[in-house]
Order: sequence, then C-alpha cells, then structure tokens
Amino acid sequence: MKIKILTLFPNMFTEFKGESIIKRAIDKGVCSIEIIDIRQYSHLKHKNVDDTPCGGGAGMVLKVDIVTKAIRENANSNSYIAMMTPQGRQYNQEIAIDLSKKEELILLCGHYEGFDERIRAFVDDEISIGDYVLTGGELASMVVADSVIRLLGDAIRKESYEDDSFSTGLLEYPQYTRPIDFEGMKVPEVLLNGNHKEINYFRKKESLRKTLKRRPDLLNKYSFSEEEIKILNEVKKEENF
Amino acid sequence: MKIKILTLFPNMFTEFKGESIIKRAIDKGVCSIEIIDIRQYSHLKHKNVDDTPCGGGAGMVLKVDIVTKAIRENANSNSYIAMMTPQGRQYNQEIAIDLSKKEELILLCGHYEGFDERIRAFVDDEISIGDYVLTGGELASMVVADSVIRLLGDAIRKESYEDDSFSTGLLEYPQYTRPIDFEGMKVPEVLLNGNHKEINYFRKKESLRKTLKRRPDLLNKYSFSEEEIKILNEVKKEENF
Repeated sequence: MKIKILTLFPNMFTEFKGESIIKRAIDKGVCSIEIIDIRQYSHLKHKNVDDTPCGGGAGMVLKVDIVTKAIRENANSNSYIAMMTPQGRQYNQEIAIDLSKKEELILLCGHYEGFDERIRAFVDDEISIGDYVLTGGELASMVVADSVIRLLGDAIRKESYEDDSFSTGLLEYPQYTRPIDFEGMKVPEVLLNGNHKEINYFRKKESLRKTLKRRPDLLNKYSFSEEEIKILNEVKKEENF
Repeated sequence: MKIKILTLFPNMFTEFKGESIIKRAIDKGVCSIEIIDIRQYSHLKHKNVDDTPCGGGAGMVLKVDIVTKAIRENANSNSYIAMMTPQGRQYNQEIAIDLSKKEELILLCGHYEGFDERIRAFVDDEISIGDYVLTGGELASMVVADSVIRLLGDAIRKESYEDDSFSTGLLEYPQYTRPIDFEGMKVPEVLLNGNHKEINYFRKKESLRKTLKRRPDLLNKYSFSEEEIKILNEVKKEENF
C-alpha cells in the first residue's frame, strides 16, 4: 500500500515514519509513506497557500486552486483521497479495515486554516477522528495511517490484534502480569491455575462486563453467540442491570 | 499548565513539542510539556517494563509495579492522571475544555502492550480518542495535549476557535476564498456583497444544514435560539427532512 500525506508541515512526520511498527512495515515493503508539501504547488510569489475568507471572519482558508493542483499531481486512478476534517464521518475500526484494502491512500491535512468548501468536490472521503478540535489535520492523518498500517500483513502478529478492543467488537478483557500480589492487589486466581477453559470463560465474561459497564452502545452492534448471551445475562445479574 | 507524558517512546514527541502552536504556548509560558521515560523506573536488569500475560495469550503487559512507580514519582496532589486506552471514555471537546482547567495533567501511554488491570486504580481518568486501535497511546496523548493546549489562554486567538466545529456544538459553516470562480465552481454570491446580516444568516443556515445532513446526533445536544429553530425548519424543508 502507498500512503501519501499532503500537508503544510512535512517536518511533523519524521518521527512518525521512524516509529517501530511503521518503520518495520516500510522496511518490509508492506507500505510506503510519502510526505508531500502542499506549498510546492503554490504559484504565488511567497508560496502562499491560503487567503482570507470571503465574507470576512477570523482565520485563513486553504485555496482550492493550489490544493487541487497538489491532489491532481499526486493522485492516479487507484488513489483513494481522504480529507482530514472535523466535519467528516467519524473514524472507526471498520473504516480502518476498509482503508487498509486500498491500493493508494492520499490523506489531505489542513492546519489552523479551514479548507475552501470547493475542495470537498475533489476528495473521496472526509474523515474526523473524533469530536474535538485539533490544531491541524497532521495528528489526525497519523492516527489514520497508524491504525491502517498496523492492519497490513506482517506489520504486527495476527493473534495480537485479533483480541484488541474494537477488533472483536467488545472492549478487551483485563490483563495481568507479575507481581501476582502488588500491595495487596492480586491477580485473579483463575489466571494462575492453567485451566484454559476456565481462563477463556473468565476473559469472555470480563470483556462483556467491561463493555456493558463502559460502552453499552457497542453491545447493540455485536453479534452474540448463544454462549455469550448466557454469559452476558450472568454479568447483568451480578451487576444489577 | 503542566503536562507530563509518561511513555516508553520519548523520542516520538520531539517534533510535536516543536509544532508551532504548541511551541508558542511553551515559549509564552502558558504551558510546559515534560516527556518522561517510564523505562527509567524499572528496577530490572535490562530495564524491562513488561511481562507475559497471566493466563497466557499473545502480547505483553505493562507491569503495575514499574508504572505505579513512574506515576508516584511524578504526580503531586494537583495532578490529574489520565490513561490513554481504547477502553476509556470517549474523548470530546467538552472533556478537552475540562482538562484545560487542570493545573497539572499526566498522560499515561502504553505501546503495543496492554496495561496490567491494577494500574487503573492509580489513575483519575481513562480516555479513548476514538473507536479504533492504535499502535500505542503516544499519538492519543498528542491528540489530547494538542486539543487542550490550543484552548489555553493566548495559544491561539479567541475568535478563531469559537467558530470551530464542536466549539459551537454545530459543524462549521462552509468557508471560501479566492479565486471567486474555480473551473466554474463559484463562491456563493452572498459572501461577496458585504451585507453582514445576510452573511451571518447564510453561515448559520449552512452550518445547520451541514450538521443536519452529516451529524444529526449533534443537534440533539444543541440548545437552539428561537431564530435558529426557524432556520433549521427552513433547511429541513429544503432538504426534504
């Protein structure tokens, strides 16, 4: 997979590209990341890329002619172009999985400035990583790239991500490691007895409990096995739901 | 405000700290950011910080004794400690505003590894920036720090953020700048006539339209003025809602 990030702040990505899982994916040829400076597509004297908003108001607006040029000179028929914007659809693990199947991903970042509305006609997708305001789209594009790259082939071992929160549709079960007793807080007995059936049952139950208590909305979308329904009912009784 | 980030990958934050708005906030003394390597609190020979999960399974688990030591040696009675985890409450602009009022914020990041469940007893908050899985909490902590710092005092001009998506409770209205005509796509006439009453009306209406079409869930939480209800009804008629 090719990932191209269009940004006004290319320097912000150096450490990101060196981050271990990302670097491993690049080194293995699983993906490439190209950081492209939008500013080089400016025809203006001082390489300006933004202008004041029509109709007045604070802030600056990224120019449609320059951003479109940057998109056109980097996209091909296989490119999937996503703009990072708080106005986009809410990013989630499902979208991450979809994006991980694209041949080429172009992530378009603004910074302080808004985008000229007309730019939206030139992208395939608008993505918001959450209902909060960031200084720019750069961190958002790293979040998207990171979540996509870790799904690619050998970037990480398969078993590891299949238990992750959201990958199963539930929050992850509680994890413990040594010391067995920390200031009186003990690792649950069941995890120490080596009985895998009991361990699996415990983990499923605690995963359901955590999801029920913290993110009941996730249960609405979850497709339960018959056994899981039974376990959930036990949990509900224990928690007085 | 003091922000301390506890991480296993301190190098990932160098560029983040140099990012313009963050740097300006630091230079002005509005906030300080300290990046703290959890590894230095390991008492183990190879400065290990994680161990295999009790009960078996893939991945590694961050040790409660070491992480707790890192927390205790850096926290004081004014510290608000938030763990970055997909199991946390969903981060949003309201939480960002809350966090921006804290005196000291400690952000705890895992990386690949999960946290030993017992660590949760030593934090004040657990935050998830969205329903997707990241390689680690480092990007999540940057997202939180960025969204908080831009709310602090002079980090950015006030007028600029008050129009942002989520700050008003609605998605932002469409913005335009020159050229007025781009390949036949024109800036709406109303933004060029200098009539501020009409411009404000247009912007309010388009902000409501965008929110209705893209994020109707936000309208449920929004407190409308009488005029806004009228405008929303017009929009609904136009959009056949």
